[in-house]
Amino acid sequence: MTSLAAQAAGSAPGETSQADQPPVEFRVDPARYRHWRLAFDGPVATLAMAVTERGGLTSDYELKLNSYDLGVDIELYDAVQRLRFEHPEVGAVVLTSASDKVFCAGANIRMLAGAPHGQKVNFCKFTNETRNGIEDATANSGQAYIAAVNGTASGGGYELALACDRIMLIDDRSTAVSLPELPLLGVLPGTGGLTRLVDKRRVRRDIADYFCTRPEGVAGKKAVSWRLVDEAVPRPQWEQTVAQRAAELAAQSGRPGPGASGIELTPLAKNRTETEISYTWVRAALDRTAGVVAITVTGPGNDAPADVSAVHQQGASFWTLAVTRELDDVILDLRTNEPDLGTWLLRTNGDSDRVLGHDKLLLENSGDWLANEIVLYLKRTLKRLDVTSRSIIALIEPGSCFAGSLLELALAADRSYQLDGVFEDEDPDADPAAIVLAEMNTGPLLMGNGLTRLQTRFVGDDESLAEATRQLGLPLLAAEAAELGLVTFAPDDIDWADEIRIATEERASFSPDALTGMEANIRFAGPETMETKIFGRLTAWQNWIFNRPNAAGPAGALRRFGTGQRADFDRKRI
Amino acid sequence: MTSLAAQAAGSAPGETSQADQPPVEFRVDPARYRHWRLAFDGPVATLAMAVTERGGLTSDYELKLNSYDLGVDIELYDAVQRLRFEHPEVGAVVLTSASDKVFCAGANIRMLAGAPHGQKVNFCKFTNETRNGIEDATANSGQAYIAAVNGTASGGGYELALACDRIMLIDDRSTAVSLPELPLLGVLPGTGGLTRLVDKRRVRRDIADYFCTRPEGVAGKKAVSWRLVDEAVPRPQWEQTVAQRAAELAAQSGRPGPGASGIELTPLAKNRTETEISYTWVRAALDRTAGVVAITVTGPGNDAPADVSAVHQQGASFWTLAVTRELDDVILDLRTNEPDLGTWLLRTNGDSDRVLGHDKLLLENSGDWLANEIVLYLKRTLKRLDVTSRSIIALIEPGSCFAGSLLELALAADRSYQLDGVFEDEDPDADPAAIVLAEMNTGPLLMGNGLTRLQTRFVGDDESLAEATRQLGLPLLAAEAAELGLVTFAPDDIDWADEIRIATEERASFSPDALTGMEANIRFAGPETMETKIFGRLTAWQNWIFNRPNAAGPAGALRRFGTGQRADFDRKRI
Repeated sequence: MTSLAAQAAGSAPGETSQADQPPVEFRVDPARYRHWRLAFDGPVATLAMAVTERGGLTSDYELKLNSYDLGVDIELYDAVQRLRFEHPEVGAVVLTSASDKVFCAGANIRMLAGAPHGQKVNFCKFTNETRNGIEDATANSGQAYIAAVNGTASGGGYELALACDRIMLIDDRSTAVSLPELPLLGVLPGTGGLTRLVDKRRVRRDIADYFCTRPEGVAGKKAVSWRLVDEAVPRPQWEQTVAQRAAELAAQSGRPGPGASGIELTPLAKNRTETEISYTWVRAALDRTAGVVAITVTGPGNDAPADVSAVHQQGASFWTLAVTRELDDVILDLRTNEPDLGTWLLRTNGDSDRVLGHDKLLLENSGDWLANEIVLYLKRTLKRLDVTSRSIIALIEPGSCFAGSLLELALAADRSYQLDGVFEDEDPDADPAAIVLAEMNTGPLLMGNGLTRLQTRFVGDDESLAEATRQLGLPLLAAEAAELGLVTFAPDDIDWADEIRIATEERASFSPDALTGMEANIRFAGPETMETKIFGRLTAWQNWIFNRPNAAGPAGALRRFGTGQRADFDRKRI
Repeated sequence: MTSLAAQAAGSAPGETSQADQPPVEFRVDPARYRHWRLAFDGPVATLAMAVTERGGLTSDYELKLNSYDLGVDIELYDAVQRLRFEHPEVGAVVLTSASDKVFCAGANIRMLAGAPHGQKVNFCKFTNETRNGIEDATANSGQAYIAAVNGTASGGGYELALACDRIMLIDDRSTAVSLPELPLLGVLPGTGGLTRLVDKRRVRRDIADYFCTRPEGVAGKKAVSWRLVDEAVPRPQWEQTVAQRAAELAAQSGRPGPGASGIELTPLAKNRTETEISYTWVRAALDRTAGVVAITVTGPGNDAPADVSAVHQQGASFWTLAVTRELDDVILDLRTNEPDLGTWLLRTNGDSDRVLGHDKLLLENSGDWLANEIVLYLKRTLKRLDVTSRSIIALIEPGSCFAGSLLELALAADRSYQLDGVFEDEDPDADPAAIVLAEMNTGPLLMGNGLTRLQTRFVGDDESLAEATRQLGLPLLAAEAAELGLVTFAPDDIDWADEIRIATEERASFSPDALTGMEANIRFAGPETMETKIFGRLTAWQNWIFNRPNAAGPAGALRRFGTGQRADFDRKRI
C-alpha cells in the first residue's frame, strides 16, 4: 500500500459544506502548535512535522501519516515567519519529520476530495505562498532550508522538500520520494511540484514524465542520479550527515549569528465582526450587499525614529512591521473566509512624509538583519495581492498617504482613481490628494515576475518608465499622476462618487470567474519566472482539473480514491 | 445593440452533440472558399472576410456579422499558407472585411455556447496557431499583415487584428474595437487577446482592465492613444492610406518580389477509414480499443537533389514539404476528430542519410525563399505537437530514420524508447537503430519558448547540452543516446514489447485531464514568451472558465447571451 493509500484508508469522501464553520484564523504561535515541533541548537533550527491526526480544521477527516490541511500549513507559515524575525541566530533550518517512517504524505486526500472547488484553490495558493517564502528565506535572509527526508515523501510532501535549498534522503529501499497525484488521484502535483522538478531541480522533461506516473516513487541513488534529491545517506550516518550539512550551510549564512537577539512577533490585536475586521493600522469594512470590502490603511502616527536601533526596540510595534502583519492577516482572512466579497477598495489615511521616513530608515539600513526582514516581509505581503482573486481598486483621496511603500498598494491595484481637487462639500480647504514615488517603488519590492510594479506597469515602454522615475520624491497631483500613467483615472469632485459607484457595481455584475482569469493575465505582463509559472501555468491547469468530473465528480479519481472503486473517466483528451 | 448581441440574436443555445457529424476536414483551396476573398495587386494581397451566414460547419447556427467557426478559420489558415508558398511576390497582406459595417464579430457565440468543452478548447487552439502563423509570416517571411479595420472589430475580431503587424481603424464614431467577452459572455478574450494587449501592444494593465470591461469598445483617436490601434484614418482617406501603408510595408519586405513564381500547394492525397489515415509519407493506424494511434513517417525515397532549383521544380512533392503537409494534416485531423485516442506512438522508417541530405539542402539555401518557407512550415508543424493534448511516445527501432528534422519528433515526445540491439526473431541481421543529431536540431526549429527542443530538454544543464551537441552528425546507438540523455529508455529485444505495452496501457488508465495538465507543464521548462503565455497562462485560465457553470452552465453567461435573460452567477471568487 502506498503512503497515499494509507492516509486515505477508510475515507468515504463526499463534498463538504463549510458554510457553518467559523472563520479560519491565521494567527497562531508556537505554544499552540499541534502539528510542528521547533527546536534550536545554536545556528541550526529543526522544524519537525508531527501532525496530530485528529487535529484537522474540521472533523471530517483524520490527518494520517503527516498529511496536511490548511491548519497544518498555517502553523508552518507561522514557524517560517518566526524563524526569520525571532531567530536572527539561525542560519540553517532542518525541515524533517518527527516520525521515522513518513516524512509527509502530502495534502490530506479526504480533505481535498471533500472541499468545495474554491477552498481547494485557496488552500493551494496559500501553500504555494508559504513555499515561496521558504525559498525567499534561503535566497534573501541567509536562512537556508534543508529537507531531511527521513521517511516517505509523497505528493505535497515531496513538493515541500522541493521548496528547500537541499534535499537529503535516507538511503534504504523503503524511503522514497514520489509524486503520485496523477496516477492515483487524477490531479497534478500542483503546489509547485511540476514546475520545480523541471525549472528548479532541472529534471529532464521525459524523466519527470516517467517519475510523475510512478506512484511508488524513486529511492536512493536513483533519486540522486535523476536529480530528485541532492544526497542519499545510509541510515547509520543520517543524523551526523544532516547535522554536518546544516552546520555547513549555517556557516555560509550572512545572518548575525550567535548572540543576536530577535524581536517577538507579539499577538496581533484583531477585532472581527460580521461587518468589520479591524486592527491597529488596518480596517476592513465588509459590505455583503454590494460584495465590496473597503480597506483603509493608516500611516505612521509619528515620524520615523532617528536610527535603526529604535526599530529593534519597537519590534513588532514598529509601524512598517505592524502594518505589514495586519495587511498580511487581512488578505489571508478575506481570501479564505469572504469569497463572496469580490471587490476590494484600498484607501490610505495619513502623512506621506512619515511613510517615506519609515521607508528611508529601512532602506538606509538594509544591512541590518531586521530592517532587511521587514522589507522582505512587505515584499511577500504585496505579492499576495498580485495573486489575489479579487478585483482591487485603489481610491486616492485627500488625506491619503499613497507614498513609497504604501503607493505599492495602488500600483498593485487593477485600477486606481485619484481625486482631482478636493471634496468641496466635505473639506474645501483640504490639500488635494498627492501620490509620491520613492526608492521603495524602484527596486526592493519586486513582484513574482522579477520586476517592480512600476516596471511591470510600463513593460516595453522605457520612456514612460523613465519619465515616471524622474518624479521620485515629488508629490504628484491627480492630473499629473494620470498624465504620467501612474493612476488610471482622475475624476473631480462632481464625478467621483458616480464613477466609483459605477465601477464597483459593474464589477459586481460580471462573472467572478472571468474576472479572476482576466486579472491573472493582465497583472503579469512581461517576463515569467518559476514563481509566476507556478501561479500561472501550473495553478491554472490544476484549477481546471479540480473542476473536471474526472477528478472531482462522484466517479472521479479524487473522490473514489481509497474507496476500492476505480475512477470512471471520460476518456476524451481536451 | 452591440455587434455581439446582433450576431447572437434569435439564438436558443443548448449544448450540441456532434457525435454523428462527419470528421472535420482541413484540406481546402481558394476555389472552394465560402468565407474569404483573396485578391492580388502586385506585391500587395488583400484577404477580405466575407463570411457566408449559412456556411457554418453545422447547421445549428448562422454566422452573422462575419462571426466565425472552425470552418472559417480553416479557410483562413489555408489562405495564410498559400500566400507564403504560392505568392513569393507578395510582401504585404491587407486583412480586411468585405462588409463596410463589420470587420469581424469574433467567434460565433451560438457555436461556442453549443459546443462541448473539448471542441471549444480545440477550436481556440487552432485559432491561436493560425494567428501565431500570421505573426511568423510577418517576422520571418517578409509578408507583413495589416489589419484594415473598416467596421466594428469585436472580441475574436479584434484579436485577429491584434495578430497583425499594424492595425488601422476607420476614424468615425461607429467603428470601434472591443473585447466584450468578459462583460457580455463571462469568458476571456482567450485567443491571444489579453496577452497581446499587454505583451505585444504594451497597453498598460489598468487601461487593459478598463477596456476589457467596456463592451462598446473604443474608437478613433482614443483607440490610438491607448495603443489599441496604430492609426485612425478618416473614411475619405481610408482606401488611399491603407494602400499607401501596404505599399510601404511591401517595399521593406525581403520577399523576392515581382517576377518570382510560387509553387502550387496541390491537393493532399489522403485516405481516411475507420482505422487508418494515410498519405504518401505518413500513415496513422487508429486503435480505438487501446486508445492509441500509431503514426509512421517515411523518410525520403531518394537522395536530396543537388541544388535548390530542384526544390522549386518538385514543389509540393519535394519530400520535406510533402511530409510536413501530411504531418500537419494528420495532427489537426486527430486532434479534432479523435479525442478518445489519447496516446500517439511516433515511428519513422527510412534512410537517415537521405533525411539529413534534404535538411542540408534546405539549410544551405536558407536565403532562398522557398527553402526558408519549408523550414518555417516544419517549425510551425512541430510546434503543434508541443501543444497537442495527447501523450506522445517515440519508438526508435531498426530501420528508422530519427535524424535531424525527423529527430525533432522524438525530442517533442513525452518519452522515447530506443531499441538496444535488434529484433532477434524478426531481423537478426538488421542494423541497430541509431539517431543522429544535426544542424536542424540546434537552431532553425525553435519551440514557442524561443529555445530548441534540445535546449529545452537540457535547460539549466549546459554541460549535457554541450556534450550532446558534440555528437552532431554521428549515429548514436541506444546505449549511447540514453547515456547522453537524448532518449528516455533503451530496452533490449527481450524487454521492448512489454515496456511499450505497459507504458501505453498505463497511459490509457490515467486521467486524461491530468495528463493534459502534466504535459502542458513539463514540456515547457525554461523561459516563457508571448506565444507560450497564450498557450499556457491564458489558455489554461480560459479552459477553466469554459468549464465553469458561470460561463457554460444552463444559467451561465455564454448560454444565456442573446436570450434576454441575465446570467445567474455564483458570486464566489475562486
